[in-house]
Amino acid sequence: MNVGDTGFVLISAALVMVMTPGLALFYGGMVRTKSTLNMLMMSFVSLGIVSVLWVLYGHSLAFSGDVGGFVGNLDLIGLKGVTGDTLMENFAGRKIPVFAFSLFQMLFAVITPALMSGALADRVKFGSWMVFVGLWVTVVYFPVAHWVWGGGWLAKLDPAIIDFAGGTAVHINAGIGALAAVLVVGKRVGFKRDPMRPHNLTMVLIGTALLWFGWFGFNAGSELAADGTAAGMALNTQVATGAAMLGWLAYERIRHGAFTTLGACSGAVAGLVAITPSGGNVNVFGAMLIGVVAGAVCSWAVSLKFKLGYDDSLDVVGVHLVGGVIGTLLVGFLAINGAGGFKQFVSQAIGAFSVMGYTFVVTFILAWVIQKTIGFRASEDDEVTGLDQTSHAETAYDFGGAGGGLSGAVPSATVASKKVDA
Amino acid sequence: MNVGDTGFVLISAALVMVMTPGLALFYGGMVRTKSTLNMLMMSFVSLGIVSVLWVLYGHSLAFSGDVGGFVGNLDLIGLKGVTGDTLMENFAGRKIPVFAFSLFQMLFAVITPALMSGALADRVKFGSWMVFVGLWVTVVYFPVAHWVWGGGWLAKLDPAIIDFAGGTAVHINAGIGALAAVLVVGKRVGFKRDPMRPHNLTMVLIGTALLWFGWFGFNAGSELAADGTAAGMALNTQVATGAAMLGWLAYERIRHGAFTTLGACSGAVAGLVAITPSGGNVNVFGAMLIGVVAGAVCSWAVSLKFKLGYDDSLDVVGVHLVGGVIGTLLVGFLAINGAGGFKQFVSQAIGAFSVMGYTFVVTFILAWVIQKTIGFRASEDDEVTGLDQTSHAETAYDFGGAGGGLSGAVPSATVASKKVDA
Amino acid sequence: MNVGDTGFVLISAALVMVMTPGLALFYGGMVRTKSTLNMLMMSFVSLGIVSVLWVLYGHSLAFSGDVGGFVGNLDLIGLKGVTGDTLMENFAGRKIPVFAFSLFQMLFAVITPALMSGALADRVKFGSWMVFVGLWVTVVYFPVAHWVWGGGWLAKLDPAIIDFAGGTAVHINAGIGALAAVLVVGKRVGFKRDPMRPHNLTMVLIGTALLWFGWFGFNAGSELAADGTAAGMALNTQVATGAAMLGWLAYERIRHGAFTTLGACSGAVAGLVAITPSGGNVNVFGAMLIGVVAGAVCSWAVSLKFKLGYDDSLDVVGVHLVGGVIGTLLVGFLAINGAGGFKQFVSQAIGAFSVMGYTFVVTFILAWVIQKTIGFRASEDDEVTGLDQTSHAETAYDFGGAGGGLSGAVPSATVASKKVDA
Repeated sequence: MNVGDTGFVLISAALVMVMTPGLALFYGGMVRTKSTLNMLMMSFVSLGIVSVLWVLYGHSLAFSGDVGGFVGNLDLIGLKGVTGDTLMENFAGRKIPVFAFSLFQMLFAVITPALMSGALADRVKFGSWMVFVGLWVTVVYFPVAHWVWGGGWLAKLDPAIIDFAGGTAVHINAGIGALAAVLVVGKRVGFKRDPMRPHNLTMVLIGTALLWFGWFGFNAGSELAADGTAAGMALNTQVATGAAMLGWLAYERIRHGAFTTLGACSGAVAGLVAITPSGGNVNVFGAMLIGVVAGAVCSWAVSLKFKLGYDDSLDVVGVHLVGGVIGTLLVGFLAINGAGGFKQFVSQAIGAFSVMGYTFVVTFILAWVIQKTIGFRASEDDEVTGLDQTSHAETAYDFGGAGGGLSGAVPSATVASKKVDA
Repeated sequence: MNVGDTGFVLISAALVMVMTPGLALFYGGMVRTKSTLNMLMMSFVSLGIVSVLWVLYGHSLAFSGDVGGFVGNLDLIGLKGVTGDTLMENFAGRKIPVFAFSLFQMLFAVITPALMSGALADRVKFGSWMVFVGLWVTVVYFPVAHWVWGGGWLAKLDPAIIDFAGGTAVHINAGIGALAAVLVVGKRVGFKRDPMRPHNLTMVLIGTALLWFGWFGFNAGSELAADGTAAGMALNTQVATGAAMLGWLAYERIRHGAFTTLGACSGAVAGLVAITPSGGNVNVFGAMLIGVVAGAVCSWAVSLKFKLGYDDSLDVVGVHLVGGVIGTLLVGFLAINGAGGFKQFVSQAIGAFSVMGYTFVVTFILAWVIQKTIGFRASEDDEVTGLDQTSHAETAYDFGGAGGGLSGAVPSATVASKKVDA
Repeated sequence: MNVGDTGFVLISAALVMVMTPGLALFYGGMVRTKSTLNMLMMSFVSLGIVSVLWVLYGHSLAFSGDVGGFVGNLDLIGLKGVTGDTLMENFAGRKIPVFAFSLFQMLFAVITPALMSGALADRVKFGSWMVFVGLWVTVVYFPVAHWVWGGGWLAKLDPAIIDFAGGTAVHINAGIGALAAVLVVGKRVGFKRDPMRPHNLTMVLIGTALLWFGWFGFNAGSELAADGTAAGMALNTQVATGAAMLGWLAYERIRHGAFTTLGACSGAVAGLVAITPSGGNVNVFGAMLIGVVAGAVCSWAVSLKFKLGYDDSLDVVGVHLVGGVIGTLLVGFLAINGAGGFKQFVSQAIGAFSVMGYTFVVTFILAWVIQKTIGFRASEDDEVTGLDQTSHAETAYDFGGAGGGLSGAVPSATVASKKVDA
């Protein structure tokens, strides 16, 4: 067992963990006050549901022996037979504990469904969302992770798909899944009409900070080793993210006349997404190009929802699907060490489009079944009142006399806990 | 010296550091606006006080040569004789610098008294709290850490107590200490009568995120080595925490009809607490069971304060004492590799109850002496006005025109700095 | 290549990354609501600009072969020739990838100009700030980093300057640069007259937490190795920071009658600054002394701006310049292992004063040229309205019905996007 690699993967896993609450805050700041907590909880609860499902059968479906290229077998159900002494080889050819790898990959499975929640802001039943998360990882995430990283069919292409840390398995997957779910669930009341301004941009920035920070674990940790490749990936992550922030800011300055905080944060996330599949296989100029393209293109792509009329509320499609596709395809050409070229590009395109096709169809069916059975969409009354009150019996803030807090007798708004429909 | 282990312990220490401000935010979001800063400061100041006391004599009292099983000797006062080259053995039988171990353990000593602050929310003099923290770590934490980890009497039991990362030394210790202090200090004005809603649940979630993140350092780092045991501990930490979140949410959905954000966060913390003593010695099913039991039982336990009439304001007893006891006792039965069984359970129970007895009595006396001399409880006037203003001459927020910020001329509330009684 | 060191440096780099958003929050909480986002963005955008410039030519100017003691040559433009296999020696005499070192140092270059932004709060054009950041790192930071760490003239002094992690290159540099820029840009409207209270002290604490956390990577990571020196540095970082918090709190309690949250946070940062150059070369008592002196002296120094009449809005001079000088000079006397003494003190003083002189002059000229060409200072109208609206077309918060969020129909303030002057 390599001690340095083991420590690196364990700390990287902790960094990936903090991305999910980071995402919760990133999204939570963008919605209106009345559904802030619901937004936070849609991400946060994935840390509960998926962590448990992962050790029960997720690890096995994704990483146990291959069944027809499509999914893993059941040999590792409940992590059967794995102990602290069970080792596996990492990408540097050294050994780390399977427990460390399992934790690291678990946290990828946790964040992927959470990414979709931004598209469904303000309008789904929380209980149904929990059901959706559990089923979606089972029929979508675990298999697709197997395709790419578990020895499945995308790993068997010639040349094998390059997806260092999750352009297909995580971002395209979540982005297209979000689109399918949105088409089932429909638009928010007031879409296009109401401004729906972010209620707290400082929270968006806190979330972005935690995402960016954790992404070093996500990206560099995917090497499962502290080596030169991990170092290059980490460096490229920073360069692409910086370039994407500048790309987004430049686009919106030209197009809309201002550098916004929301743009800087969104640009950073777009860069992080695009470098995720590609950063282990490009040089710093490749990273910079991928970043700046992702920033500028995603900045344009987020306006498509208004033209095409789907309510991708917090731009999951515009950032994660588009950014994921950009990174996945560009690495086909930009890969160094002789890996790039047209044949590689074809493998990349096959990966991107097969995940899009599979995940769109399965997610649509899944969301549709949930809508027709237990109901996915919240009632219009609940949506207008705000899900914080109706699903969670809470409100995010109670500043009673915030501009001073000098009064001990400010009446608190009472939480209407009678009508809860979670 | 093992380089990989050293790096792992140093980064783990940084993660443990961030838990204390995480705790500050977790608690700070739960109180009313008027005492938010006081709540933050009660945790934060421990980073100042205890860090200094630790190198002065805390490390020595906890980890220098044993004196009668009760406390360490004074050989390491001021870390005498320790340099960057002084090494010690970790639990993998490899060597790390004593400085790294001392920093790691220092940060355990920092957070433990801070945990108690939640029980005393809104109503103690800040200066007296600082005195209490300094004395409490001296007469309670340093000795009890010695009992468990410094070669003291609990480590000498047959079989030795299992407390991987601090179920007895940290959580039971803080939980029972909080109860004793609360009994001396008394209830808040308006206890049971006023709603006292959390003023900022997004801050609670930020705090929970930092706690959860840092807890990987706390738990896995306690192996002082990046090995399979640390990896198993990290994995179990995530599984138990996820399961506890689900356990708490399930209980409150059944009992109160809603999934709350406060419940998800509290459940996560309950899981983290319960897996702390146990996670290095159970398999994933053990972790899951410990988590779900901790979530459900703590969710019920937090209502006891209303029945029994002690004002454990932010549920330190209900979460840390109860969660700590659950983890400490359950590992007696669930421990793998032949460690579990009735004899182990007896050692666990001895540990749990001896810490409860010792700490309750000593903390009660300490709080009582402070109350009778310099005064522990703030005046009712100050409490009603809010300690932010009266102890810190500040208010947490001044959003003047927050819903737009478009006015440059919103009058700021002036801070009444005349009457400060810290 | 040493695996343990490589992992340690990569994770340390991630920790340094999170310091810049931490700084953004630390500063952002201190300003008024109307310019919160501008304050956040002034730091955040540095992650974009400087990351890109660093790989283009910053690394080369700072760390490629020495040209006359003043600056590096251009051999490493675009990181030419560096691959994942390119290694370099760290301070433990072991090897790590150059990519890891480059990323780590890049993030130092990112945060240094961001530190200056606090002095210029509320009143500079955002576009001009971006230009300033890009030019300042080019003509100030990259050369000065070369002087100290890249084999430049301060490293060639006899004895060489001790600057473990950036007392001169980072803190004195940013502190004196801030002073020069402030003298060009002038005072805020209402300086001395309006209270200008921090609008969100909980955000200040979140920022401080991330800074403190990340600073372990900044300080201990500067050894580029996980060894006893790094461990001592990490321990000293915590001790000095704790002592400085207590020093600041003691000073303000005596002088102003209250322990403030802003004081605790500022004290912590002052301690972190002062231990940065010194912590690798002192023992724990040295660290404690440096901390307590920094806390008390900086606490006094921040009031100088009112006496001397320069508007160092968020006390960059008072904390970073003064704290940096304290740490840089004191280590001259307190250094252990035979390094301290009068000759060392002279080298330290030469370093401190030469950076002060060079950076003051160059920054003054740079800011003056920007002011005279594209304009640095925002219009008085924009400043009074608030830069969030005028430069970023956003407002930080929209709590519409925050004290309950129970209404779905609270009218949002519309963002006046017509008049943007970024």
